[in-house]
Amino acid sequence: MVSKNQIKLITSLQQKKYRNANKLFFAEGVKGIEELLESNLELEHLYTTQNNFDTVSKEKKTIISENDLKKISALATPNSCLAIFKMPEEKLIIENGLILVLDSIRDPGNLGTILRLCDWFGIQQVLCSKETVDLFNPKAVQATMGSIARVNLNYIDLNKFLQQTKLPIYGTFMDGENIYKSHLPQDGIIIMGNEANGISEELEKLVQNRITIPRFGDIQKTESLNVATATAIVLSEFRKG
Amino acid sequence: MVSKNQIKLITSLQQKKYRNANKLFFAEGVKGIEELLESNLELEHLYTTQNNFDTVSKEKKTIISENDLKKISALATPNSCLAIFKMPEEKLIIENGLILVLDSIRDPGNLGTILRLCDWFGIQQVLCSKETVDLFNPKAVQATMGSIARVNLNYIDLNKFLQQTKLPIYGTFMDGENIYKSHLPQDGIIIMGNEANGISEELEKLVQNRITIPRFGDIQKTESLNVATATAIVLSEFRKG
Repeated sequence: MVSKNQIKLITSLQQKKYRNANKLFFAEGVKGIEELLESNLELEHLYTTQNNFDTVSKEKKTIISENDLKKISALATPNSCLAIFKMPEEKLIIENGLILVLDSIRDPGNLGTILRLCDWFGIQQVLCSKETVDLFNPKAVQATMGSIARVNLNYIDLNKFLQQTKLPIYGTFMDGENIYKSHLPQDGIIIMGNEANGISEELEKLVQNRITIPRFGDIQKTESLNVATATAIVLSEFRKG
Repeated sequence: MVSKNQIKLITSLQQKKYRNANKLFFAEGVKGIEELLESNLELEHLYTTQNNFDTVSKEKKTIISENDLKKISALATPNSCLAIFKMPEEKLIIENGLILVLDSIRDPGNLGTILRLCDWFGIQQVLCSKETVDLFNPKAVQATMGSIARVNLNYIDLNKFLQQTKLPIYGTFMDGENIYKSHLPQDGIIIMGNEANGISEELEKLVQNRITIPRFGDIQKTESLNVATATAIVLSEFRKG
């Protein structure tokens, strides 16, 4: 059974202002929740329609009906469980190795998928412009598949940061150097731009190395790649050595 | 003004059975519709809230209110336009070059993103198992960004096809050869598996070359990549030469 107040709290967490006010966010789905439980994040409460998650103490677990799950879920077809976690404290920026910079990514699915990619490729630090979609948006959390606990992500003034860094700055553009032929370092900053407009003019001025993923062939083709798939190729090229 | 019957027809096209019965599908958003208009697909009718799309004849265009657009749109936040197209005739399979095989991809966004990738990398032919999500699903159409008109996609009995082909068959697994160190041909078949279960056992038996995108480092990490981002890296590796 979920009380009206609980329903109100949980559905309010679909909005950023209530997530920040309560310092809480939620995840849905067995696999994603399991990964978060194994991390250093603190569980606030778990709601599940099944008698599972044996490691979670009774006090922190409520078995609910599918009907109640529908009332709290952000999904059109709810999974079997929803878990509320405490938002982690913001960590200090790790300014070495490869850093991924996101300039106003708007789609939460793209942000979550990119974080999962960073986890795969061992990128420890992601820096986002303040206009970038919130990482604790339910759709972003869903797409991270638990990587949210393992990759450090900060929302900062990118212009200020990039002006002071000593790391080389790479950016993806349509007219850059062929990435397959570029020398790519193990320490540096890679900027990926907004879905519709790419990298902003302000940040473009700070890019020292313009790179491009070349299209294959020259017949009429799609104009661009989705930002998450482009990030996949870029990180793969930087990491393969 | 959109009539009740038109609203009924258009919203019914959100379902596969009505798309197939009417041989129609729809796309939303200026950019995607523009790309489809430039292709060889035949426009059935365009609904727009603005006085745009000058190349479309008066008979095929209706300017409607935002409220009417809401009634026909499949999006939570509707764009400014929706266009209905005739479904193209199914084409013969092109059995040369690189062929991408999709074994039960379930998410329409993933399928659309993968088609856009194929367009970018000059993959002319995609073959899908009959369990794979429908390409004309509105979310898939949305994610293709017009590539739907340029890449050939067929739903077939994959087992039967793979048993008779003379092309080398590659498949992505967790335990395959490092893709960065593999020799990858310009003609061949690449199989990508279902989001949750990977490549089915039936098809796995037919794979001659097992390949893997290696994870970077060895600390605890995400278990897998999203299938669209994995496809991005695989196609990039095959194409870069």
